[in-house]
Amino acid sequence: MVSYTDFLTTDKLDDYEDAAKFESEYLPKLEKYRKDLAAGILPEFSAELPAPIAELEEQQLNAVKYIREHRLLTEQEFEITDSSLVTLCEKIGKGQWSATDVFKAFAKRGTLAHQFTNCALELFPEEGLERAKYLDEYYAENGKTVGPLHGIPISLKEQMNYKNKITHGGYVSKITNIPTKHSITTQILEDLGAVFYVRTNQPQTLMHLCGNNNFIGHSRCPYNIALTSGGSSSGEGAIVAFGGSAVGIGSDIGGSIRGPAAFGGCVGLRPTTNRFSKNGGISSGAGQESVPAVQGPLTRTVDDIDFLMDVYINQGKPWTTDCTTYPLPWKKVEKPKPESLTIGIMYDDGIVKPTPPIARGLKHVAEKLEAAGVKVVEFKPIKTQLARDTVCKMYSCDGNYMQRKLLADSGEPLTKLTKWALNYGDGSEMYDVAENRKLNIIRDQLKQEYTDFLNDNAIDFIISPTYSNVAPRPEEIYNWSYTSLFNLIDFPTLVFQTGLFQSPEQDQWDESHASYEFRSPLEELELNNYDASKFKGAPIGLQLTGRRYFDEDVVAAGKTVVDVLGVDLLNLYK
Amino acid sequence: MVSYTDFLTTDKLDDYEDAAKFESEYLPKLEKYRKDLAAGILPEFSAELPAPIAELEEQQLNAVKYIREHRLLTEQEFEITDSSLVTLCEKIGKGQWSATDVFKAFAKRGTLAHQFTNCALELFPEEGLERAKYLDEYYAENGKTVGPLHGIPISLKEQMNYKNKITHGGYVSKITNIPTKHSITTQILEDLGAVFYVRTNQPQTLMHLCGNNNFIGHSRCPYNIALTSGGSSSGEGAIVAFGGSAVGIGSDIGGSIRGPAAFGGCVGLRPTTNRFSKNGGISSGAGQESVPAVQGPLTRTVDDIDFLMDVYINQGKPWTTDCTTYPLPWKKVEKPKPESLTIGIMYDDGIVKPTPPIARGLKHVAEKLEAAGVKVVEFKPIKTQLARDTVCKMYSCDGNYMQRKLLADSGEPLTKLTKWALNYGDGSEMYDVAENRKLNIIRDQLKQEYTDFLNDNAIDFIISPTYSNVAPRPEEIYNWSYTSLFNLIDFPTLVFQTGLFQSPEQDQWDESHASYEFRSPLEELELNNYDASKFKGAPIGLQLTGRRYFDEDVVAAGKTVVDVLGVDLLNLYK
Repeated sequence: MVSYTDFLTTDKLDDYEDAAKFESEYLPKLEKYRKDLAAGILPEFSAELPAPIAELEEQQLNAVKYIREHRLLTEQEFEITDSSLVTLCEKIGKGQWSATDVFKAFAKRGTLAHQFTNCALELFPEEGLERAKYLDEYYAENGKTVGPLHGIPISLKEQMNYKNKITHGGYVSKITNIPTKHSITTQILEDLGAVFYVRTNQPQTLMHLCGNNNFIGHSRCPYNIALTSGGSSSGEGAIVAFGGSAVGIGSDIGGSIRGPAAFGGCVGLRPTTNRFSKNGGISSGAGQESVPAVQGPLTRTVDDIDFLMDVYINQGKPWTTDCTTYPLPWKKVEKPKPESLTIGIMYDDGIVKPTPPIARGLKHVAEKLEAAGVKVVEFKPIKTQLARDTVCKMYSCDGNYMQRKLLADSGEPLTKLTKWALNYGDGSEMYDVAENRKLNIIRDQLKQEYTDFLNDNAIDFIISPTYSNVAPRPEEIYNWSYTSLFNLIDFPTLVFQTGLFQSPEQDQWDESHASYEFRSPLEELELNNYDASKFKGAPIGLQLTGRRYFDEDVVAAGKTVVDVLGVDLLNLYK
Repeated sequence: MVSYTDFLTTDKLDDYEDAAKFESEYLPKLEKYRKDLAAGILPEFSAELPAPIAELEEQQLNAVKYIREHRLLTEQEFEITDSSLVTLCEKIGKGQWSATDVFKAFAKRGTLAHQFTNCALELFPEEGLERAKYLDEYYAENGKTVGPLHGIPISLKEQMNYKNKITHGGYVSKITNIPTKHSITTQILEDLGAVFYVRTNQPQTLMHLCGNNNFIGHSRCPYNIALTSGGSSSGEGAIVAFGGSAVGIGSDIGGSIRGPAAFGGCVGLRPTTNRFSKNGGISSGAGQESVPAVQGPLTRTVDDIDFLMDVYINQGKPWTTDCTTYPLPWKKVEKPKPESLTIGIMYDDGIVKPTPPIARGLKHVAEKLEAAGVKVVEFKPIKTQLARDTVCKMYSCDGNYMQRKLLADSGEPLTKLTKWALNYGDGSEMYDVAENRKLNIIRDQLKQEYTDFLNDNAIDFIISPTYSNVAPRPEEIYNWSYTSLFNLIDFPTLVFQTGLFQSPEQDQWDESHASYEFRSPLEELELNNYDASKFKGAPIGLQLTGRRYFDEDVVAAGKTVVDVLGVDLLNLYK
C-alpha cells in the first residue's frame, strides 16, 4: 500500500491522464458547459458581488449573514425562502403563495448561493419558472395541488439522471451523456409536484469529502467561503444551507450527504440502504454491493427531513418502479421525550481525534442533553480501524476499474483528492471474488456487533463527529472514518447542527496538544491541517445514528436533540 | 467450460478427493453418526416395513397412501397429524390437545416418514418429548401458551445451527462442528413455542436439486419412493409431505425449498430475501451476495404458510436480533377473488421444455383458473438463457473456493451432482471483482425488466413449472433454470400442488416428441431421462411468483389458486 506521502507521485495512477486528448477533445466541451452555466445566472435573480470572490475568500466572508445584512432579497423573498418545507407546502396548498412566487424567491436565493459558493453545475431557471406557472394554472383550474410537493423548488445532485440534460457525475468523459429519462427519484419528486431549476456540484469521481473537479472546481461553505462545503454532495450542502432550495437530494457512499450537510451548515439524512431509490445516474459503483451508496435529503430543519421522507416513501412509493427499494412505509414516530432516551457519545473514533471546535460541540451537546434529562453515556468505538480498513478496501477492490475507465476515457487531469482516494485499500490491485466475500463477512460481523452492542447496553442512538474537523479548506480532507463506518454497517445517520460555529479565539488547541502523540501518519496529516484562525464561523454539525432500518426513529430523536439545543437555522442573523 | 458429458472426468475436480484421509479420519465418525441416527428410531414411534426398502422402491410404493391404508397410526394420531398448523395452534391454545399428545403423534408419523423416505439426519424424540412436557406444565401453571407456536413440531434443515448438536450442512469435514447456539430462526421458532425433534437431510454441498451425500444418501419422495424428494431441502420436502412435521424450514439459493416442496408433494415458500433470517448455519455462501440464499417454510396448506410467516415475522421480529432482515411487517392480505386476477403462465422457459405430466399440470391449472374467472395469459419467458448463464456464474464465481475447501478438508468422495454443480458457470475459474460486478449489473437489469414487464402488462402473478419434470430419480436432475430465475431476480415464489399426480398411461410423450429437436445438450439430457413408467404417482407441483417483497400477495393468491383447484393435501386417501 502506498503511504499517504507518496500519493501524488504514484506512477500507475498517472498513466491514464492524457493531457493532449483532454485538451483537444474535452476542453472545448467544458468551455461550452461553463458558458451555459454562466448563462443560467439571470440578471433578475443575481446580484453584484461586493468584491472579487478571491478577496471575499480572503475575508472568510459569511455569505449567509451577508445577504441578510445587505438585504439582497425582498422581505417577501426572505419570508418565503426562510420558510420550512412544511410551511411552504401548507401555504402553497392553501393558495396563500403561488408556485411562481415561491419559485422566483428560491431561484433568486439559489442564484446568489451559486454566486457566493459555486454550488451549481447547471442553472435553468426559465424551465423552473415555466413549470411553476404550469402548476399555478393547474391549481387555478382544479382547485388542488398536483401532489404534496406542488411548487417546491428542489435541488438535485448532478449525478442523478436528468431527462435530456448532460449527466456526468463529475467525470469529464461523460460530458456527452444525455439520458432520455429522469432517475427514478427525480421522476418521483417531479410527480409529487417539485420544481427543478438547479443541478449541483460534486467532485471528480464522486469519491472525495471535498468538491474539486475539472468542470468548475469546488463549492464553498456559505458560512465561510474560504472553506469548502465538502463532498461529494458539495453543491447540495452549500445551496441548502444558504436557503437556495427547500430540499436538496444528495448521495452518500462514505459520507457524501453528511459531510456537506455538516460543513455547509444544514441537516442531512443518510437513510438505510434501499429505502430511497438511487436508480438512474452516473457513478463508478454499478454492480458494487459491498458498501452500497444511498440517496437522501438535505434540508434546514429535521421536521423537513421527516416530511420529505414521508411523502417520498408513502406517496412516491419508489418500490413500484424500482424493484431494489423495499416497500417499507415511512412510519409516524413521535418525537421522544429527552428522559426516555439513552444516547452514547463517541468522542473520538480512535483514528483521528477531533479538533477543538468538534470537541467543544460534542461537549456542549452532551451537557445540554444531560441537563434536559437524556441519559448520556460514552460510546467507546468498536473496531473502527478494522471498519475503516475494510470499507477502504471495498471502495477500491475492483482495482478502481470503473473509476479508472471513466477517467481514462477523457484523459482528464486527476485532482489531488482523486489520487488520494484511488489509493484507498490496495489501490489498483484487483481483488478476486473470494477476497471480496471475506470483506463482506467482516462487514456483516461488524454490523451484528454494533447491533448487539446497542441491544446489550440499551443504547438508543449514537452521537459522533461527522469528521474530525469542521468544513475543510480546499482539497484538505483525507479521512472519512467517522462517516464511512455507518456506510459499512448501514446504520441510518442524521447530520444535525449544534448551533455552534467555530471560533478562532475559543477553538485553539489546548496545551496538551503540543505533546500529543499522533496515532498514525493519517492523524498527523489531518490534525496538522487545523489552524484555528482559518476556520472562522464554520458550522459545527454532528451525526446522530440509530439502528438499521429505523430511520424514522433517528429522525424523531433528531427533532428532540435540536429542540434541546435550540437550533433554528431558518431564523439566523435576523 | 466443461461440457455436460465431460463432467465426471474433470481432473481438476478430483484432486481434492482424498480417499485415504476420508476413510481413516472421517469414516469412523460417519459410522458413529449413522448409528446415532438409527438409535433415534424409537420402537414406540416406528413400524416394521412391509418389505426391504429396495423392494418397495421397485414397487414405486406410495408411502403416504400405504400408512393410511394400513392404519399405521391410531385414529387420534391421524387426526392430529392431518390437522393444519392453524388448527393445531387453535386446539393447543384452547387446551383441547396437549403438546405431548401432538408431539407423540408427529414423532410417530415423522419417524415413519424417515423409515420410508430417509428424510432425517438426526432424530431426538426424547428431547422433543421433554420439551412438550415442559410446555404442558407451563400451560397448566400459567393458563396460557408460551407463544403462538406452543407445542408445534417443526422440522429443521440440518444446515441451520443447532445448539450443542453437530451441524455439517452436508459437508463431511464439518462433522466435528458443534455450534454453541441456535441459528436465529431456530431460536425465534423455539421462543414462539416450537418443539424440535428432527433435523433433515440435504445433499453434499447443498448445491443439488437432489439429495445425495456421504452421510446417509438421498431422501425419497413419499408418493413414490423410487424417486427422490429433490434438494437441497431434501428431507423437508419428504417429511412435510408425509405429515411428519407441521412445518418444515428449508433454504433456497436455486430452488432448494421449491424443488422438494414440488417433488415431495407439499407447499413451500421462497420468500423475498432478508424477510426470514438465514443467519447462523453452514453453507459455502458466506459473504456471497450476488444471489443470496433465503430460508422459508414448507407446509401442507397455503394458509399455514401465511400463518407461519405472520407469527414468525410479526411476533418473532427477526430484525431485532439479525440486522440483515428488514423490519417489514407481514401484512394481512385478503384472498383475492379469481376475477380480480391476471396470471401469466410460462409454459416453457425456452431452455428445457416440460415433460408430459408438467405440461398437463399447467394446462389443467390454466383451464381451471380461466373457468373460475381468472384472466389467464401466456407469459413468454424473458431472457431466461441469460438469466441461467448469469446465475450459474454467480454460484461458482469464487472458483468454488469455499465449496472446494469444505470438501477438501475431509477428502470425501464427490457425488455425481456435486461434480455437475461444480462445473456451473466457469467452474473453478476465480472471477475478479469487476467481473462479479458485471454479473450483478445483468441481474439488476433483468430484475427491472421483469418488474417493468409485469407493470406494463398488468400481470399480477406468474405460474410456471418448478422443474421440467416431476420428482427426479436419484442423481438425475441437472437443470435448475425454472427455479433459479426467481433467485436471480429475487421474486417471492410459492410452490403449490395441482392435486394431480403423474400417470404412466396418461403422461406419455405425444407423437410429435419423436421429431422434437433438442435446443441444447442440456435439454436432451433432461428430456431423455423421462420414461413415463418410472414416475408413477409423483405429485405435480408448480410455482406461483409475484413482485419482489410482495410475499403476502403471492401467498394470498396461492390460496385462491388451490381453492380453485380444490386441492386438500390433509385429507388425501381418506
